[in-house]
Amino acid sequence: MSAEIICVGTELLLGDILNGNAQYLAQQLAQLGIPHYHQTVVGDNPDRIKQVIEIAISRANILIFTGGLGPTPDDLTCETIADFFGSPLVESPEIIEDITQKFAQRGRVMTPSNRKQALIPQGADILPNPTGTAPGIIWEPRPDMTIFTFPGVPSEMHRMWQETAVPFLKNQGWGQEIIYSRSLKFWGIGESALAEKVTAYLNLPNPTVAPYAGKGEVRLRVSAKAPSEVAAEALIAPVEKQIKDIAGLDFYGVNHDSLASVVGELLRSSGETLSVAESCTGGLLGQMLTEISGSSDYFWGGVISYDNSVKAGLLGVNPEDLDKLGAVSDTVAEQMAIGVKTRLSTTWALSITGIAGPNGGTETKPVGLVYIGLAGPGDEVTSFKYNFGTMRDRSFIRHLSACTALDLLRRRLLTR
Amino acid sequence: MSAEIICVGTELLLGDILNGNAQYLAQQLAQLGIPHYHQTVVGDNPDRIKQVIEIAISRANILIFTGGLGPTPDDLTCETIADFFGSPLVESPEIIEDITQKFAQRGRVMTPSNRKQALIPQGADILPNPTGTAPGIIWEPRPDMTIFTFPGVPSEMHRMWQETAVPFLKNQGWGQEIIYSRSLKFWGIGESALAEKVTAYLNLPNPTVAPYAGKGEVRLRVSAKAPSEVAAEALIAPVEKQIKDIAGLDFYGVNHDSLASVVGELLRSSGETLSVAESCTGGLLGQMLTEISGSSDYFWGGVISYDNSVKAGLLGVNPEDLDKLGAVSDTVAEQMAIGVKTRLSTTWALSITGIAGPNGGTETKPVGLVYIGLAGPGDEVTSFKYNFGTMRDRSFIRHLSACTALDLLRRRLLTR
Repeated sequence: MSAEIICVGTELLLGDILNGNAQYLAQQLAQLGIPHYHQTVVGDNPDRIKQVIEIAISRANILIFTGGLGPTPDDLTCETIADFFGSPLVESPEIIEDITQKFAQRGRVMTPSNRKQALIPQGADILPNPTGTAPGIIWEPRPDMTIFTFPGVPSEMHRMWQETAVPFLKNQGWGQEIIYSRSLKFWGIGESALAEKVTAYLNLPNPTVAPYAGKGEVRLRVSAKAPSEVAAEALIAPVEKQIKDIAGLDFYGVNHDSLASVVGELLRSSGETLSVAESCTGGLLGQMLTEISGSSDYFWGGVISYDNSVKAGLLGVNPEDLDKLGAVSDTVAEQMAIGVKTRLSTTWALSITGIAGPNGGTETKPVGLVYIGLAGPGDEVTSFKYNFGTMRDRSFIRHLSACTALDLLRRRLLTR
Repeated sequence: MSAEIICVGTELLLGDILNGNAQYLAQQLAQLGIPHYHQTVVGDNPDRIKQVIEIAISRANILIFTGGLGPTPDDLTCETIADFFGSPLVESPEIIEDITQKFAQRGRVMTPSNRKQALIPQGADILPNPTGTAPGIIWEPRPDMTIFTFPGVPSEMHRMWQETAVPFLKNQGWGQEIIYSRSLKFWGIGESALAEKVTAYLNLPNPTVAPYAGKGEVRLRVSAKAPSEVAAEALIAPVEKQIKDIAGLDFYGVNHDSLASVVGELLRSSGETLSVAESCTGGLLGQMLTEISGSSDYFWGGVISYDNSVKAGLLGVNPEDLDKLGAVSDTVAEQMAIGVKTRLSTTWALSITGIAGPNGGTETKPVGLVYIGLAGPGDEVTSFKYNFGTMRDRSFIRHLSACTALDLLRRRLLTR
């Protein structure tokens, strides 16, 4: 019993897109304990798709397809599978109804080409697609052989996998021994430094601990094999506790926590509020904070003071200081934070001013130089200077700036 | 003549890493004009690797392996390939010398396990690894069959590919005919509607035209096969022109253009400026605009008026209207746009107010309801109402809101 992942799409063969679907499905199969030994990528070509099916059925009995379910003529996955197993395609009134409704909701009319998406092999079950028009199928074309098809759009595929495929597979007995992971997240420490601190844990048999780094943060994935999530959590909990103790304030959260969500929870629990003044990040910090539903409870808003006239006009930054010290300076960062805090009447305020590059750097103020201001209760105001380095690109410097601002407030809120 | 990419590594089957190597090699093969119809991922298991080779040699004659060249016992790629073709492994004194030197440079001594990396099949050439200790091979184990092996570390693999594999393949006559693509981008039209409009182009032999959809936008990839980029562009140009004429204003840009960059160029060329007032997007629109280096030429900044007090206080929205009509209304959207335009003295202003969900929706104002305001020269102000639908998540609704705002300004700037 094993599964094979088959990703269909010429765009994968041309390297136009990264195969994130294969990674997602691989992780999901591991979590359910379903063995999986091969992944295959093939283009939108019926003959080659059939050859790939021929090979896959000789070595796996759960075939998971992604891609090629759209309305256009080069979307051939479903009809090719039906053809391979010698089954006719039938139009599903249920799918027609669903697609029609979805188009109506958007004030649009279903086009004839969408009708193609309602054709499924005789005997197959519909794998509903709540967020798109291309449904998948779950089909047992012969005994001991199950076929799933998913659209290539990742968000649609994920939801269909979670809502329909996982319950189906669990019903078949999978997921009795599961691999359950928790991701511990750190900010302000490098991967090798953290790995050295927790080196004793990196060779544990169960749970295992593995470090990952990316976009300025480090994660430790703690994975346990156990009959249930509860049993896995019991194996993970003591290790997690010990790692947190070792890491101290560098640990900030787990799993889907973000610096913004963690700061948000701290503000919510203290009943305090936050505003932001952004120059080089241009709205990114506000975007991160408001990505969290319910952030209106503690986030009032802010000012994107990209041009100096906005720093002076809307935030009350001293024009002489802007002239003399420049917009990228500790004084301006502090005045921006005070300015937005006062005008929006919040407990705390963060400000960011810096040079995100690639242009605009000078000898004394190179690309990557960023000042972050933090204003708090009463007259409290501090600024912090960073050099995020010229090796990093604009997008990364902006990301590091916004995350570091959140991290500064997080540490401040935790140490009072 | 075609190539197959074979990625070896249990970490890929566990979903621990994204298969960026496959994407990189796919792009490189396309650039060289080497046909490539299959990608296979297999774990560090000699029997399964052999089966995969058996299949690959039946359908391709250039086999490109990545991964499994390291010093640990689970790195088996090279010896398994040699075994498959019945060739003995021989120790290369050249590699031993190279590894010894690299360890010495780092002040370390070569371990016995590194000796394994010096074993290559008899008759194979070394594919040098300038930045790591694991070299690859270029080997013709039989006539008309070429095998490349690369380590899985992307930076090492890229350099080895460029410095040794590409010259080798060009020497064999590849790269005389390349595949060159341009991506045409559209906003405001669905994939199936666009495909129907340009249906005559979807079956062209050269260039080919293929539609893709994602994150609210539709793309057409136009790919030409030709002896050079210039020749490919000449094949693409007339088709691109005709498609643009058919699509009209729904076409917004090519390749790396974004709605923000296109709007930016329009503003730059007219010498005009922009400010934003954001509620439910919380800074995302400003973030998109400032992601572009040089945006300070036309983007002044804005106000994140997340809380109603900020809409009234910093933007001058009428508190009675906020009370009576609610923050999510055409009147408030227009007042936000006028407010930020006046205060920041810009030519144009965009505002966004809506319900991004998942909470906060009511019967009359459901999740997904978004008003976008656009203020322009003189007293010009308009608002637009959208329902981005309850099927979409918070992040997607915010993304659609910000992109739609940019698209509205783009259309306005193009039609005066």
